[in-house]
Amino acid sequence: MYVGIDVGGTNIACGIVDASGKILHRESIKTESEKGYSVLVKNIAQLVKHTLKKAGVLESDVLRIGVGCPGCCNKENGIVELCINLNWRNVPLVKDLSELTGITNITIENDANAAAYGEFVAGAAKGSNSAVVITLGTGVGSGIIIDKKLLHGMNFAGGEIGHMVLEVSADEQGDDICGCGRYGCFESFSSATALVKMTTIAMENDPSSEMHRLAGEYGKISARTAWQAQRLGDKAGSEVVEKYIKYLAAGITNVINIFQPDIVCIGGGVCNEGDPLLLPLREAVAKQVYSRDNASNKNTQIAICKLGNEAGIIGAALCQ
Amino acid sequence: MYVGIDVGGTNIACGIVDASGKILHRESIKTESEKGYSVLVKNIAQLVKHTLKKAGVLESDVLRIGVGCPGCCNKENGIVELCINLNWRNVPLVKDLSELTGITNITIENDANAAAYGEFVAGAAKGSNSAVVITLGTGVGSGIIIDKKLLHGMNFAGGEIGHMVLEVSADEQGDDICGCGRYGCFESFSSATALVKMTTIAMENDPSSEMHRLAGEYGKISARTAWQAQRLGDKAGSEVVEKYIKYLAAGITNVINIFQPDIVCIGGGVCNEGDPLLLPLREAVAKQVYSRDNASNKNTQIAICKLGNEAGIIGAALCQ
Repeated sequence: MYVGIDVGGTNIACGIVDASGKILHRESIKTESEKGYSVLVKNIAQLVKHTLKKAGVLESDVLRIGVGCPGCCNKENGIVELCINLNWRNVPLVKDLSELTGITNITIENDANAAAYGEFVAGAAKGSNSAVVITLGTGVGSGIIIDKKLLHGMNFAGGEIGHMVLEVSADEQGDDICGCGRYGCFESFSSATALVKMTTIAMENDPSSEMHRLAGEYGKISARTAWQAQRLGDKAGSEVVEKYIKYLAAGITNVINIFQPDIVCIGGGVCNEGDPLLLPLREAVAKQVYSRDNASNKNTQIAICKLGNEAGIIGAALCQ
Repeated sequence: MYVGIDVGGTNIACGIVDASGKILHRESIKTESEKGYSVLVKNIAQLVKHTLKKAGVLESDVLRIGVGCPGCCNKENGIVELCINLNWRNVPLVKDLSELTGITNITIENDANAAAYGEFVAGAAKGSNSAVVITLGTGVGSGIIIDKKLLHGMNFAGGEIGHMVLEVSADEQGDDICGCGRYGCFESFSSATALVKMTTIAMENDPSSEMHRLAGEYGKISARTAWQAQRLGDKAGSEVVEKYIKYLAAGITNVINIFQPDIVCIGGGVCNEGDPLLLPLREAVAKQVYSRDNASNKNTQIAICKLGNEAGIIGAALCQ
């Protein structure tokens, strides 16, 4: 049996996971990052013990604990080198958690990588040999699997597809700077945050758009507003959706031209839109991808992630 | 002993290569692609025999023949699926060459991948675990090595970093379409061809630039003209160089953010400029790369390729 932990900014989730990637039992606690690392690591250890007890699993039956954290997780020495969200820098998470739980086989992994690996073992990318999983959320997170292994990069900080610039001249166009310090990043166009911003600007430019009524009805401008307006035939809403898909297709085509993986999976709240997102996205990518005329007629699939928040727990538990 | 063959549009080069990546003997013939595949493959077989004879190596001492070809080389079935330059489509190169030479261990590889592998075993990326090699020539070619292995992609057509779009809105800015059918590709900004084009436009916009005199003196506008002008303090020339480096740095930073390899090597004629290219490039990348503030203080190195045209022969010979 494996234990997977997903350390998020709000909650820490812990699951007992079997070798096939099924979560048998799950518990969670509030993160309370303001209490600092030493309290947090104790809380995580307590959460592990509590979850094992609730699931009726003995500590001696645990083959591995895997912890997914935002930031840079050095798998070689077990140190979380940098985690801005939790204000951790060079914390020996594996060592401390091992002492507190008595379980020695513990690994750490970047949370986006862990989620990608979860989709790879038990979700939308199951059965593939290579996959890129892109999460369209507050930012654009990603994990890359090549030959069934996560790509880490020399510093355990690779796979930052969200910080691939898609518009170099964005610095001259008055666009906002990305959190990473560049302009025109994939994240600046394809995150849910970017979609809300595009929607807001389109509304300012078109006072007659249905988006004003919709945003009022739902209490706020959200990443869903433009799609809702599109369904009503609203021109400004449709234009937002088209622009969003144009950039998303450009980013995904870049990824395919570089990796040519078996599958690209997209996840995050935006993907709840389903076919109105997925079908035009696939069409746009198919038109521009480099290998579209290849002799074997095989191309990278594009699919929506299946596991939601569970991917992070499953992936953390099972990636070595 | 290994035999490496580099099938180019103009010449076919053949080298006897030892296990360390040293070329012991080298011969070449004109490609004459217009004669068609069946003539070409016979010429390649003759070239192999001729080279072995000249080098005094017995066919029984050949451990492998490796052939680097432009285009999509399916390593699993030995078929060159698509090679636009030579007008080949689904040709059974391994089978035919094996029958013609009597040597059974033959592999094929995309030529940019082979050159990258050459730099990895015996050139600028020697000793690394992961490397991305980018050639700035007529186009922008590339090969990616992860965990000491070439990345092929599911169709053996991956690694097309040159067709990563860096400027999505190039389609709206009246830029030329890339050969791949997209607008704003890395290749459209960072190839030698692109540099010549940028130089030409800058000259049209500034009749007083030193570049006019320099181009006259050397008989043409070349990828060197702007650098020559920069050395003379010419403003328009300096601006071309700055713009060229800006896009090259953006593309390389994207590559580092995605792969975080041990090293990125750049090759091709543009790299003969040396430090005036390399030093500002390194500086620009260092400022924007995602992991610039990582705790371990290790970052991806950027270097210039060492092997020139020999890289393709060495890599073809040694990559499996």
